[in-house]
Amino acid sequence: MNIPLSNLPRVVIVGGGFGGLQLARKIDSSKYQVVLLDKHNYHTFQPLLYQVATAGLEPDSIAYPLRKIFKQKANFYFRMSEVEEIHPEKKEIDTSIGTFTYDILVLATGTVTNFFGNKDIERLAMGMKTVPEALNIRSLLLQNFEAALLTDDLSERESLMNVVIVGAGPTGVELAGAIAELKAHVLPMDYPDLDFRRMNIHLVEGSSRVLPPMAVESSEKAARYLEKLGVQVWLNTRVMDYDGKTITTDKQPMHTQTLIWAAGVTCNPPGGIPADVIERGNRIRVDRYSRVEGFEGLYAIGDLAYMETPKYPKGQPQVAQPAIQQGVHLAKNLKNQALGKALVPFEYKDPGSMATVGRSRAVCELPGFKTQGAFAWFIWLVVHLMALVGWRNRAVVFFNWAYNFFNYNRDIRLIIRPYNRVQRQLDETD
Amino acid sequence: MNIPLSNLPRVVIVGGGFGGLQLARKIDSSKYQVVLLDKHNYHTFQPLLYQVATAGLEPDSIAYPLRKIFKQKANFYFRMSEVEEIHPEKKEIDTSIGTFTYDILVLATGTVTNFFGNKDIERLAMGMKTVPEALNIRSLLLQNFEAALLTDDLSERESLMNVVIVGAGPTGVELAGAIAELKAHVLPMDYPDLDFRRMNIHLVEGSSRVLPPMAVESSEKAARYLEKLGVQVWLNTRVMDYDGKTITTDKQPMHTQTLIWAAGVTCNPPGGIPADVIERGNRIRVDRYSRVEGFEGLYAIGDLAYMETPKYPKGQPQVAQPAIQQGVHLAKNLKNQALGKALVPFEYKDPGSMATVGRSRAVCELPGFKTQGAFAWFIWLVVHLMALVGWRNRAVVFFNWAYNFFNYNRDIRLIIRPYNRVQRQLDETD
Repeated sequence: MNIPLSNLPRVVIVGGGFGGLQLARKIDSSKYQVVLLDKHNYHTFQPLLYQVATAGLEPDSIAYPLRKIFKQKANFYFRMSEVEEIHPEKKEIDTSIGTFTYDILVLATGTVTNFFGNKDIERLAMGMKTVPEALNIRSLLLQNFEAALLTDDLSERESLMNVVIVGAGPTGVELAGAIAELKAHVLPMDYPDLDFRRMNIHLVEGSSRVLPPMAVESSEKAARYLEKLGVQVWLNTRVMDYDGKTITTDKQPMHTQTLIWAAGVTCNPPGGIPADVIERGNRIRVDRYSRVEGFEGLYAIGDLAYMETPKYPKGQPQVAQPAIQQGVHLAKNLKNQALGKALVPFEYKDPGSMATVGRSRAVCELPGFKTQGAFAWFIWLVVHLMALVGWRNRAVVFFNWAYNFFNYNRDIRLIIRPYNRVQRQLDETD
Repeated sequence: MNIPLSNLPRVVIVGGGFGGLQLARKIDSSKYQVVLLDKHNYHTFQPLLYQVATAGLEPDSIAYPLRKIFKQKANFYFRMSEVEEIHPEKKEIDTSIGTFTYDILVLATGTVTNFFGNKDIERLAMGMKTVPEALNIRSLLLQNFEAALLTDDLSERESLMNVVIVGAGPTGVELAGAIAELKAHVLPMDYPDLDFRRMNIHLVEGSSRVLPPMAVESSEKAARYLEKLGVQVWLNTRVMDYDGKTITTDKQPMHTQTLIWAAGVTCNPPGGIPADVIERGNRIRVDRYSRVEGFEGLYAIGDLAYMETPKYPKGQPQVAQPAIQQGVHLAKNLKNQALGKALVPFEYKDPGSMATVGRSRAVCELPGFKTQGAFAWFIWLVVHLMALVGWRNRAVVFFNWAYNFFNYNRDIRLIIRPYNRVQRQLDETD
């Protein structure tokens, strides 16, 4: 909408996450007119969302205004909007703010929480993919402790104090560790009238170990860290249903009014993509040049894209790094294309993976070596700090981390928007 | 609710603003059991709300968790709740979480925005008394600029870019100055496609000068600063009505979709207070010991209280300082009472007043001297920084101020919760 016509081909990028952001940054805007669409006006640094949810960081430090990132870039247009349907035959895309024409369309909308079709869980569990969702978790945790003070019914009180996290990937593990530290250092001072021996933090995982994508020794170390922090880890356990107070599993039931769902993701491709290019997890099949086969000028990158490569014949892992590398790679190939040069096929270079389980405790797998404990934790801190967008955010995050480390504190335990079901309907439109 | 019975008299304080916070801090809890009620779980530093509304500060830096402030205090209980009705004859108070009994009840609920009975304005204008309201203004300002890009209708675009602030007290003046700086330094870079000569910032005041409570020379200086910043000041102008796009005044109409209402406050005393102790502005008449005449154990302090003293025969000004001093004073008198000592009547010591109109521009009236310009601005910075609760907040605010000063920037321009009318209904329950 209201984007000037240009004699350069127009590249429309849908999604300002890790993949879309890198593509939009690196693409040569002397060769292309660049249009970036996102439903938010900011980029979200998802790896630290769990610290927003646990009152360790302000949302502002992990969100960065997209317009600021691109204020120096020529031929660049950002429009806040949601994609509704694409018409590849007409090279048009329908959005919440109208219809755009494109020469090249790059879909980079990432993933959404996967509730595996369970409507009760979808309605009552807390997802953690966006800043508003993380703030809802922060509010709900604190609201439930306020409410726990008001009841004499012990089982009710325990269900308000207990937290159950489903899914022991990095998100679930880091969240469980952070909540365990709240329980150890912060909540008992705030709520001296409550008996915290009665608060249980359960981490439920369907597979046979935590951090399934990582090496067995990392999984075992992380599980040991979690147990040290008092987190109860349930492996090989499936969640069947949730009524808002009780979770039924294939083992024992669990009582909680705070169920955080980190059990899996799926994709939500826009309408207009034919079923025959949709792979497992609703990912869009692309070739090694990120092209959707059978469509001219249609691309997908990041978590949404399913790309088989010699090193990754079952597709790339759905984490930040492949998205970032595909964004950079596609920017290069689009330049090659503009210059009439040959395109280069994509291959993923895995820089490693890591997860932190609380202060001085992390597991870290880098090319060539694995490490756990304080050194891994230090690597985790540096990597995440440097990966943030903007020096202001790095400085504020660093300050808060240092402050929280020395004070064993989480100062941002504010209920700014009390969480309720009605509110939730609104957030889902965010 | 669930507050242990004690052989000490129970003091219930309603409201954790400036007055209630000081009273709860200073009251001797070896003599009294202290119960603090607030609808939020944090204290709001209202003087800096305007910087949250204009993307200069995170909400987290001006809000401070009440439980953290009092975690060392014995015989202290905080309960997040809203007062509904009081029963002075039974010494009971009904709240959203149930009924409390009290020996001493101190009402410190402050003020609410006064729309002077105009329902259209109440529904469509933005108030700025709470953190959620300030965040709504931040969202609406940015949403309107995103929307301005999408229309070709010039008058529609201007109504989206224009901002009208009604009320030229400190809040209105500081807000107008901050928005003028956004227009000067931030928005044109974010929205290069928009012509900012078409953006107007109007400050409408019913009386004959800005900052009416201050000295004439301060008013004139502040008005000059505002004009330098390009703010259009309308004195002796009354707002009649607003339809969401056009404001009708007794002068010319103004076109804006962002009307911020800082024109006045009123009080909202709980049910159960008889009409004959209610004064102008719905304030509760108290004697110089903060007692509501005719009721045993019932007190009011701060903006809600109407107290005539020799120096202030028409009541105390409704600003932070009298509330703070009354809170401290009542804590002392309650101790005197417990010790059987004589009570001391209250008199307000005015430490002065100040307002900032943007970088290096402020007006400042201190006992003995007045100053304007950069030095006044420096005093303003130091006073507000030190008045914040908690060293973490001071450090984060100082960092952001320094960063914004040197970068002419406001980094927190995030639309985290898009503003809409439905959302608003929820905020009003905050």
